[in-house]
Amino acid sequence: MRIALVIGSTVSTIKDEMLQGRKLLIVQPADTKGNAKGEAYVAVDTVSAGKGDLVLVTEYSSARYTGFTKNLPIDAVIVGVIDSLEEGGKYTYQKS
Amino acid sequence: MRIALVIGSTVSTIKDEMLQGRKLLIVQPADTKGNAKGEAYVAVDTVSAGKGDLVLVTEYSSARYTGFTKNLPIDAVIVGVIDSLEEGGKYTYQKS
Amino acid sequence: MRIALVIGSTVSTIKDEMLQGRKLLIVQPADTKGNAKGEAYVAVDTVSAGKGDLVLVTEYSSARYTGFTKNLPIDAVIVGVIDSLEEGGKYTYQKS
Amino acid sequence: MRIALVIGSTVSTIKDEMLQGRKLLIVQPADTKGNAKGEAYVAVDTVSAGKGDLVLVTEYSSARYTGFTKNLPIDAVIVGVIDSLEEGGKYTYQKS
Amino acid sequence: MRIALVIGSTVSTIKDEMLQGRKLLIVQPADTKGNAKGEAYVAVDTVSAGKGDLVLVTEYSSARYTGFTKNLPIDAVIVGVIDSLEEGGKYTYQKS
Repeated sequence: MRIALVIGSTVSTIKDEMLQGRKLLIVQPADTKGNAKGEAYVAVDTVSAGKGDLVLVTEYSSARYTGFTKNLPIDAVIVGVIDSLEEGGKYTYQKS
Repeated sequence: MRIALVIGSTVSTIKDEMLQGRKLLIVQPADTKGNAKGEAYVAVDTVSAGKGDLVLVTEYSSARYTGFTKNLPIDAVIVGVIDSLEEGGKYTYQKS
Repeated sequence: MRIALVIGSTVSTIKDEMLQGRKLLIVQPADTKGNAKGEAYVAVDTVSAGKGDLVLVTEYSSARYTGFTKNLPIDAVIVGVIDSLEEGGKYTYQKS
Repeated sequence: MRIALVIGSTVSTIKDEMLQGRKLLIVQPADTKGNAKGEAYVAVDTVSAGKGDLVLVTEYSSARYTGFTKNLPIDAVIVGVIDSLEEGGKYTYQKS
Repeated sequence: MRIALVIGSTVSTIKDEMLQGRKLLIVQPADTKGNAKGEAYVAVDTVSAGKGDLVLVTEYSSARYTGFTKNLPIDAVIVGVIDSLEEGGKYTYQKS
């Protein structure tokens, strides 16, 4: 799963009917310190993530395998909010 | 889902029979301000997107999961037209 | 679907039995003017594409969804020959 | 499968219920000498891998095909701990 | 399918049980002349490929569709040994 930062949100009135009512957040890939960089993209939120949260994003076919996203035409879903990341016994990121 | 800009269209007479009658648009990846850059590719349109629209594109297997694209041999589908993108309480993009 | 140029062909005697008799073409990603660049790869042809043709290539799981490639162990298939590409009312590419 | 180095671990309280109790490790792509570089990401562990282990990571849909990860909304799973890598008759990596 | 060069092999004692007995080769992406470059990765061999062979590698879900790899947790499989590659009427590669 990719580590990503929630940076914003999307409004789309005209969309596939299976996406109606879904929360579409803008996420940006992040490193293990929580610093974001690179191409932002859009993921469906299933865990009530908020802006500024560092999250885990599952991509491609497995994005359809949460309890809330079965058979949806989506290729990215937020499956978790990260509390902390740790390397070599030290925290590189902790949710504030 | 990738944020992309619709930049053109494709004509292909000789193609897989399951693609007959499909609208094949050229899209280019875009940032959250709607600026396009990078490799253009072709996506099936299911939401009557037009040139200049910023859209959401679902890629790979999930492209087969809209109501209009079941079991098609396609790897990219436009699933929504973006009205606006917002970061930190400010619009970075609004459909004109 | 990726826009790609057919640049050559592949001969492989020892291969998975499900690939026997398949035409394996070498394709290279191309821009909307038909200029090829980047890593060449191999795609199964289902539309009698020829060298020099600009084609549409479907990748990964959806490559198994044409009428000719069901359940094959392939990750790229040519699904159409491009007649023309158009941007902003002008042709960027026309098949000669 | 990608060769990757286990560099850390992840704590996530709020996550998809199907991910409860899963060990989520941070891995970083590595070359055949075991040197890691590039974007770190998170993989589910199924083989009791430890920090510093060089591992094999299966990505995308096939990540759901181990005995421990059926139908999970995950796109990366550790499927093996590497003992050694060999090129041209010489070891490029041996587990210490 | 990607063109790749077989450069080595992998030993992994602790691995998913469905990978027991599988030959895991190290491959590196190659161009149409057979020159390898870029990130090496591991693919399951199903065609008795040997070191120095230029091969065709099928990636992601379709890697599970050979007769020898049904439902395995793998994302790359060698499906053919390349005899020759040809561009513009000339061989760019011939197996020695």
